[in-house]
Amino acid sequence: MEDQNNKFPKNNLPKVFLHGSPKFTSILQPHHSHNFHIINPSSSTHLHQFLSTNPHHATDIAAIVCTSLYPVKADVLRLLPSLRLVITPSAGTNHIDLSECRSRGIQVAGAGNLFSEDVADMAVALLMDVSRKISAADRCLKRQSLSASWNFPLGSKLSGKKVGIVGLGRIGLEVAQRLEAFNCIISYNSRNKKPLVSYPFYSTVLDLATNTSILILCCELNNQTRHIINREVMLALGKGGVIVNVGRGALIDEKELLRCLIEGEIGGAGLDVFENEPNVPKEFFALDNVVLSPHAAVLTSESFSGIKQLVEQNLIAFFSNKPLITPVI
Amino acid sequence: MEDQNNKFPKNNLPKVFLHGSPKFTSILQPHHSHNFHIINPSSSTHLHQFLSTNPHHATDIAAIVCTSLYPVKADVLRLLPSLRLVITPSAGTNHIDLSECRSRGIQVAGAGNLFSEDVADMAVALLMDVSRKISAADRCLKRQSLSASWNFPLGSKLSGKKVGIVGLGRIGLEVAQRLEAFNCIISYNSRNKKPLVSYPFYSTVLDLATNTSILILCCELNNQTRHIINREVMLALGKGGVIVNVGRGALIDEKELLRCLIEGEIGGAGLDVFENEPNVPKEFFALDNVVLSPHAAVLTSESFSGIKQLVEQNLIAFFSNKPLITPVI
Repeated sequence: MEDQNNKFPKNNLPKVFLHGSPKFTSILQPHHSHNFHIINPSSSTHLHQFLSTNPHHATDIAAIVCTSLYPVKADVLRLLPSLRLVITPSAGTNHIDLSECRSRGIQVAGAGNLFSEDVADMAVALLMDVSRKISAADRCLKRQSLSASWNFPLGSKLSGKKVGIVGLGRIGLEVAQRLEAFNCIISYNSRNKKPLVSYPFYSTVLDLATNTSILILCCELNNQTRHIINREVMLALGKGGVIVNVGRGALIDEKELLRCLIEGEIGGAGLDVFENEPNVPKEFFALDNVVLSPHAAVLTSESFSGIKQLVEQNLIAFFSNKPLITPVI
Repeated sequence: MEDQNNKFPKNNLPKVFLHGSPKFTSILQPHHSHNFHIINPSSSTHLHQFLSTNPHHATDIAAIVCTSLYPVKADVLRLLPSLRLVITPSAGTNHIDLSECRSRGIQVAGAGNLFSEDVADMAVALLMDVSRKISAADRCLKRQSLSASWNFPLGSKLSGKKVGIVGLGRIGLEVAQRLEAFNCIISYNSRNKKPLVSYPFYSTVLDLATNTSILILCCELNNQTRHIINREVMLALGKGGVIVNVGRGALIDEKELLRCLIEGEIGGAGLDVFENEPNVPKEFFALDNVVLSPHAAVLTSESFSGIKQLVEQNLIAFFSNKPLITPVI
């Protein structure tokens, strides 16, 4: 199949549209495209704009690679009657209308477990940073507030703490593995109790929060999990409680989180994701008990070279009629 | 013995001098002193000054509790002919002249393993913070540099990295336990190869640095370890290398560290300790690849209540003629 395709002139190869910011599409652009042809607009052009000036491509785009800020929902799918494959270089897929893809027979590939370690590392890093006040002390010292920093407020011990993990998929399990080594006591909430997992299971996030002092959000965002962390859950977690979010921003009611942090109803938060990215509510900026990260959980040089390879391998597999390497559906 | 002492008027009880900043001595002041009497100058008074205005105490101080910025060296020991016990609420003892204590028959108690978990947590927190650029990104976001932070430079993956631990005592072992859960590959250097430890041993720090990309300093400071991290070691660690110091500042040649960081000869550093505390060289303040912490590795509220108890228990044991709880010598 690959050999056959190579005999075609490049214009006849199936077209793959890269939908994302130039920074990401330049990273994701495959080196070798034996059996497909890449369309990389190399600007922040959204597909709608692109097709309005290049209408002939509407019928020949067979695959799309889309980052999380470039959704592929029903409106996009309607524009591309020949689409057969969507690839997202992310663990989350909430920017893709999976059921519409399924009903149209479109395959979807994700990042598989490629990012699990990095995201779990980030979750633990944010937790430690909030608990031990690392960023706050570093900022204080670097502002040359030497005397203030040498009288810096005490942090909170991490080792031995009760940690609740919301969503015990691959990332949640990696977080649990790391925090067990800190002698933390792990429990979890997820759609269903995992038969092979020995950590205590709570069937609601409220029960989990009541029985722990740290919540780490690793679940996916969907209609069941939107605002799963509401005021009631935060009050149950308590005044010393810490919330870490490496899932998606809308897992938390962000306005209530801010209110609880400012009122001292919870102790702190480590946030890699926000409800309306790339916007971050500016009220967070003044809070020393909050550590903010610009959706960077997967942003390591090692992951980037890994995802570039994975996108390429999925494209090559698909256009060789082989199974996807990291299928979602 | 305790009962007997209780029959004496308070002035006849053995005297315990608290030598430290008011912040620490107020924390360390025991609640119950059945068989000893606490002298807490409640100001930053050094012992020399105190004795010059209270000369009668020179001969009746039987024990001293000293924090790390308040050394007990030969000059202090000469002033206190009745001294029989020195307690330091720290893991490190380099501020105490142990051999002089030994020759005078003075017992010394330390913090035992009380701080091991917190110090190991801090070592991992600093490593993660440097590798994944947490503090730098948080600072960038909080300065409201949203567009800059959303294009923040990539971090470096922690999981799976080769980590060299310098000093595999209790703290070093706790660090190793934590980093094994991040799938890191551990090796170590220490005075001697540990017969019960399976991690690869390197007999010199230079060899360790050559074979790893991260060094974590957990050893004690003495004449053999002063400036154990010199330019040669840093060059061997290499341009992507990270150094974390939770031991003592003078383990590193600080001027060379600064030079190597500025010249890009190593990748980053996480520093909880400095050569001339409480001073921190201001050249560090501008470096985004350095995370600074104000000697805070043990500064958690849990450790503070623990050390208060431990100091008290050691004093009660000593003045009851029982063995020290956490003897150093």
